[in-house]
Amino acid sequence: MKRILSVLVEDKPGVLARIAGLFSRRGFNIDSLAVGHTMEPGISRMTIQVQGEPATFEQLTKQLHKLVNVIKISDLTEDPNVCRELLLVKVKSEPSTRGDIQQIVSTFRAKIVDISIDSMMVEITGDEDKLNAFLLLMQEFGIKEIVSTGKVALARGAKATTLAAGDKDKKK
Amino acid sequence: MKRILSVLVEDKPGVLARIAGLFSRRGFNIDSLAVGHTMEPGISRMTIQVQGEPATFEQLTKQLHKLVNVIKISDLTEDPNVCRELLLVKVKSEPSTRGDIQQIVSTFRAKIVDISIDSMMVEITGDEDKLNAFLLLMQEFGIKEIVSTGKVALARGAKATTLAAGDKDKKK
Repeated sequence: MKRILSVLVEDKPGVLARIAGLFSRRGFNIDSLAVGHTMEPGISRMTIQVQGEPATFEQLTKQLHKLVNVIKISDLTEDPNVCRELLLVKVKSEPSTRGDIQQIVSTFRAKIVDISIDSMMVEITGDEDKLNAFLLLMQEFGIKEIVSTGKVALARGAKATTLAAGDKDKKK
Repeated sequence: MKRILSVLVEDKPGVLARIAGLFSRRGFNIDSLAVGHTMEPGISRMTIQVQGEPATFEQLTKQLHKLVNVIKISDLTEDPNVCRELLLVKVKSEPSTRGDIQQIVSTFRAKIVDISIDSMMVEITGDEDKLNAFLLLMQEFGIKEIVSTGKVALARGAKATTLAAGDKDKKK
């Protein structure tokens, strides 16, 4: 079963190594991972997508909680959430195919961000289904390379996965 | 000095832990990290932004090369590249401020992806400067939470950071 975790951590060297080590020892392969800053200085947020058994998964989050630099863990799998990913795709193009590519790009509300003699670079965001549909079409032209950010997610509506006042002190 | 590395790795449990461990032992703090699939099954691409001295950095990439699951490393720092990041931002909103927020969102070519009674969620992509400018404006309304994918980058034009035929075998 695929799970999406949003984890707030202290931004210190070694934190990522500790968390990645925990997942690997438990045999979880991380499907996608995104690490970025939050508004709070010194605190980063990791969005992790993993596959695994529900039972093992519960153990994993318990152990994750025990790590000193982990501040808060939210499992977004079952909550209504907005989940997005960003792709940069470099597609082969010739003067004769540029128009076709441009048409697909605008249908998917993607953006062309670079053009060279024999290629175009497209920036697209969306959920997994949309991105897969887009890539399938681009394969017709030939994909030269691709880079993906991995998924990020936020709960819809009022529910917050951020730091409530005092969360950081509670752990200490 | 800030550096952006694009690293192709085999998609196996433990790879991330090994790479993160290497950075942390060398005292490099990872600013942002994005891990996602490539078109090649079994191969993931990591985009890593770190800060460090050029001399130490060279040692680091050499050691990175020695790790068995690392297939290819490209340093994109000095090449012309397209660098993008995706943010989901939940902003406080009231009926009276919704119009103002919407106007800023459309100026930045961002998208509103969720609205609740007291908040709106915005999806925005861009480089660091654009995102910082946007966040500064959103702070006026009050940011409830934020999640960032970390940076991804592709070299402009014909230069490829992907697997050339045989790269994978060369390492073995």
